[in-house]
Amino acid sequence: MRIGIIGAGQLGRMLALAGYPLGLRFTFLDPNPDACGAQVGECIVGAYDDPAKLRELADNVDVLSFEFENVPVETLTAITRRRPMYPPVTALAASQDRLTEKTLFRKLGIPTPDFHAVDSLEDLQAAVAELGAPGILKTRRLGYDGRGQYRIRTVSDVIPAWQQLGGVPLIYEAFVPFTREVSIIGARSSKGETAIYPLTENTHQNGVLHLSKAPYKNAKLQTQAEKYLKKLFRHFDYAGVLTIEFFVLRGQLIANEMAPRVHNSGHWTIEGAETSQFENHVRAICGLPLGSTAVRGHAAMLNFVGQIPEQAAALKQTGLHLHHYGKEARPGRKLGHATIVADTIQTRDRSVKKMLTLLTKARSR
Amino acid sequence: MRIGIIGAGQLGRMLALAGYPLGLRFTFLDPNPDACGAQVGECIVGAYDDPAKLRELADNVDVLSFEFENVPVETLTAITRRRPMYPPVTALAASQDRLTEKTLFRKLGIPTPDFHAVDSLEDLQAAVAELGAPGILKTRRLGYDGRGQYRIRTVSDVIPAWQQLGGVPLIYEAFVPFTREVSIIGARSSKGETAIYPLTENTHQNGVLHLSKAPYKNAKLQTQAEKYLKKLFRHFDYAGVLTIEFFVLRGQLIANEMAPRVHNSGHWTIEGAETSQFENHVRAICGLPLGSTAVRGHAAMLNFVGQIPEQAAALKQTGLHLHHYGKEARPGRKLGHATIVADTIQTRDRSVKKMLTLLTKARSR
Repeated sequence: MRIGIIGAGQLGRMLALAGYPLGLRFTFLDPNPDACGAQVGECIVGAYDDPAKLRELADNVDVLSFEFENVPVETLTAITRRRPMYPPVTALAASQDRLTEKTLFRKLGIPTPDFHAVDSLEDLQAAVAELGAPGILKTRRLGYDGRGQYRIRTVSDVIPAWQQLGGVPLIYEAFVPFTREVSIIGARSSKGETAIYPLTENTHQNGVLHLSKAPYKNAKLQTQAEKYLKKLFRHFDYAGVLTIEFFVLRGQLIANEMAPRVHNSGHWTIEGAETSQFENHVRAICGLPLGSTAVRGHAAMLNFVGQIPEQAAALKQTGLHLHHYGKEARPGRKLGHATIVADTIQTRDRSVKKMLTLLTKARSR
Repeated sequence: MRIGIIGAGQLGRMLALAGYPLGLRFTFLDPNPDACGAQVGECIVGAYDDPAKLRELADNVDVLSFEFENVPVETLTAITRRRPMYPPVTALAASQDRLTEKTLFRKLGIPTPDFHAVDSLEDLQAAVAELGAPGILKTRRLGYDGRGQYRIRTVSDVIPAWQQLGGVPLIYEAFVPFTREVSIIGARSSKGETAIYPLTENTHQNGVLHLSKAPYKNAKLQTQAEKYLKKLFRHFDYAGVLTIEFFVLRGQLIANEMAPRVHNSGHWTIEGAETSQFENHVRAICGLPLGSTAVRGHAAMLNFVGQIPEQAAALKQTGLHLHHYGKEARPGRKLGHATIVADTIQTRDRSVKKMLTLLTKARSR
């Protein structure tokens, strides 16, 4: 079976590496011929939204997927007439627009922060008056890793926020004074089977995921999160991996956003779970039985952003596994990650601490 | 760092899949443009012994290795002047000739079956007279998976054996009435560090590896096997993974052969050990620290020879991981394997039994 993936970044690369042992073959579509996925599979070089290139991709494979969310929905819809595309384009469309996404969450009974659409300075003033400050003004589309956001601390931030972001459709969200951030990741196969991982606890730095730890054990929140994920599965008649990021506030989950794909906060599953999120995504879109999501002990994932720590020193750490994406180093760029798996939380956390020291050293080089 | 591998079979494929997460890149040399390694990395299409193609490979990479043993030593020696080649060509040369190999084992104090060089019918008659029957007449070179062998049960088999194999250099080996077969697999890095896996117990069918189980726990044999492996490491100033296959007879190890490469009986290490033999091979040849060889519970590996069992049924088994090599099915061909990892020997063996049933079903299709 041949799988076509739109985008050949690190997510596409790890999907291919997980899918090869199942005998699958991978073709990417990416504008960069040396993209990190292209290093490990065939690549059609072209823009994500080039209809001719998308047709070429579709005609070369049995099933399509994407690892990159900012592809125009119309272009994708056109090629789903040629080959099945999972996750469904409807889920992609919902995730592309923060207003549509949060409106859907509300409709399905998934709690969200209070929000208000903003298309003018007057809208923003009304939103801040209604929801109060602090809050965050965000572009509805094309934001990721904290980009396209402005934090409004007091009413006096309204004008500068509007000056920076105004002109495109926006959303104002009330700030959630969360105690922690968690994510739920699960797969639903094209045959309807589901497999859900335990909650992961996430820490961000400058809006970019820094550290994930799993399992985050909390039976009540796990049940809540699984219920919300399954509502979305059903709503979209979903196939593939789906992620929801939540804030935890007073013991309740508040959905921040969803991602219709494998997720950075699930990278620990490569060594930390019986079956990785990447393998379960390809199993799901191929209609194969899903694999066990059981955790092997206690796992953590540390992102390498901008710098890669010294490899030899890192590899000396027991229970640590490196994942380099084959990218050139550049400030703010996700270059790789380390997974740490240990039998106890204490051993894992000691190992995380050691690795953080190596990361700090890399940054000061 | 770029690694060049001579041969793009399943071993090369699994080396690349293990090396990508370390940020390494792979180029193969193989006559078949759709070889299973070529599906996951760059491939220079050409004969293994084409000096121009070997030079092209060397000039494109930082370090060379091989996954295929029947490459003329002279051709390889020539390109080691351009790039470092690990494992050393001297180890490859010794492994290519059963007589040289067993003579070396004896010299290093590694026990072997009794053997006798055979270059004529008279030699064979003398060998059988001296060592007795049963015994096995083997070609000294180019034999693998039981090919190029003739079992001599009584003196009356001498003539037919000679008629079948005579004309090339041969070796007659006394039959060892072994109680089991085991292998030791270990890595030595180009910096001299070593990491050795626990013994694996192997079962063959028609001369081809069928089933491996690890760890085979026997402290005395483990110590013996590690001692022998280290003698070879030192002798060759070795770098990379090295395997020795042994017969166990009356509680002692008798070396059958060595393989200067990752080995089929070590495929269980992908999920069954903290670091796989493939990752340790690439770490070793790149001079990186070696990874832990600790076992995760109890592992088994089942080869798919000639047929692949029904994928969906196999994937439903907990603790089972599939490894398809992306090859077309053909009788006698190694097409893939399954690894089974479990917390107890009983659970593992139950799972092996289930998988054997699926294999039997595949064969009767």
